[in-house]
Amino acid sequence: MLSTIRVRYAETDQMGVVYYANYLVWMEVARVEYCKSVGFSYEEMEREDGIFLAVAEANCRYLYPARFDQEVTIETTLSGAHPRMVKFAYQMRLAGGGRKLASGETKHVFVGRDLKPAQLPEKYWANFGIGGSAPQP
Amino acid sequence: MLSTIRVRYAETDQMGVVYYANYLVWMEVARVEYCKSVGFSYEEMEREDGIFLAVAEANCRYLYPARFDQEVTIETTLSGAHPRMVKFAYQMRLAGGGRKLASGETKHVFVGRDLKPAQLPEKYWANFGIGGSAPQP
Amino acid sequence: MLSTIRVRYAETDQMGVVYYANYLVWMEVARVEYCKSVGFSYEEMEREDGIFLAVAEANCRYLYPARFDQEVTIETTLSGAHPRMVKFAYQMRLAGGGRKLASGETKHVFVGRDLKPAQLPEKYWANFGIGGSAPQP
Amino acid sequence: MLSTIRVRYAETDQMGVVYYANYLVWMEVARVEYCKSVGFSYEEMEREDGIFLAVAEANCRYLYPARFDQEVTIETTLSGAHPRMVKFAYQMRLAGGGRKLASGETKHVFVGRDLKPAQLPEKYWANFGIGGSAPQP
Repeated sequence: MLSTIRVRYAETDQMGVVYYANYLVWMEVARVEYCKSVGFSYEEMEREDGIFLAVAEANCRYLYPARFDQEVTIETTLSGAHPRMVKFAYQMRLAGGGRKLASGETKHVFVGRDLKPAQLPEKYWANFGIGGSAPQP
Repeated sequence: MLSTIRVRYAETDQMGVVYYANYLVWMEVARVEYCKSVGFSYEEMEREDGIFLAVAEANCRYLYPARFDQEVTIETTLSGAHPRMVKFAYQMRLAGGGRKLASGETKHVFVGRDLKPAQLPEKYWANFGIGGSAPQP
Repeated sequence: MLSTIRVRYAETDQMGVVYYANYLVWMEVARVEYCKSVGFSYEEMEREDGIFLAVAEANCRYLYPARFDQEVTIETTLSGAHPRMVKFAYQMRLAGGGRKLASGETKHVFVGRDLKPAQLPEKYWANFGIGGSAPQP
Repeated sequence: MLSTIRVRYAETDQMGVVYYANYLVWMEVARVEYCKSVGFSYEEMEREDGIFLAVAEANCRYLYPARFDQEVTIETTLSGAHPRMVKFAYQMRLAGGGRKLASGETKHVFVGRDLKPAQLPEKYWANFGIGGSAPQP
């Protein structure tokens, strides 16, 4: 799944490049689009099931700075999933086959409204390829 | 009520000064401190009464740019209040009696969880000087 | 000029709606697109001419809260311009002819790298309709 | 080095807790304070030496969510340093000996104005304990 964003002025800092925390915002944008692309609605799960996707871990390696008004592509892949957890990996590049800017990974756990660990409702399993290959008794 | 913040790197942009939207964040920080100073807890009203303070209007005049690591004071005054609405005014200055950076105003309406207009619960009126001077029958 | 953004999770706050300062970020996104649409490059003026557009004033009236994942259109119009100043007005609506969310205005002055007032270089005047009606000797 | 911040409303998201990217902003705030505490001024190095500290890597493990208006302490330690690179580790806790919220690490490289790798000017080495234990001929 490929997402595209354009760097906002708000996202730059006085070094003249994108402030490092904003790459995590871009990962979120890309993750939401990834979820939609596999037929999974973040917003619906929150509203209907009271299940949220809490971030457990995030990391980012910064290779080359992004600048204002550049178009950046974020390639998102599902790098792991089971009923309590999903992991996504991200590759950020200048649009147009350009230079690699950064790569990252986020790990998420499903939680209820009380923020205690929960299971992803089974109706969403197929969206993340969970339980798909195992025989169902 | 005088609040103090220190400019974060994250708050600067590539012009080398604080990005304009961040002054509204500072106003929020100052407003929360103002509310506490008059014995009013934002967080308690949200949790216990299900009443939120929704912003209806905000404006800011930028006089002189703030820069990374500067200490900024925000003087907050209550510029209007009745049971459905409160208004705050802000003066932002470099700390140490310094130069005036910006001034702003925000207008807020009380809303319920459904975001429909609500009244400030009467127990909080005194915090904002509402109904205080009028004779109570 | 009509710009479209999609509400990011990062832009929401614990009231479940978009945090008020983020509307100013959207205005910036829309303003940059407006400038491009009239053939004016923000980034070029900064880099080539050392002229920046500093915000002198911003205001926003919030009519209805925007929520995560909604598509929002921002209609930008030039509401004033002369060689030292430009003003923009913004109308924010839910995409698809939907409800009006907010309206705002920003006023900008041209400044040099030293952040002192400067004039918009004459080559850019036509982009903002400045001096257009006056006879050119 | 112990830094303290108070959670801003702006930093929360619709899950009712602090949005994950903001922990990286807190690490920046803590890192700046750490640098000052060892006599090193970020701002001076940028201005006088034209040397910037570019983030090469960042990661964060989220253990327990922080909420609006909570006071959070960030303990910063230098976890590695040589003339081209420094590493910091962070422990974030609720103030008052409270619960651990998150831990993180950032790795930085020194760069010039052109964002190409540079060396930390020798006058700053002692601040980071670089070359300190080696005998000086």
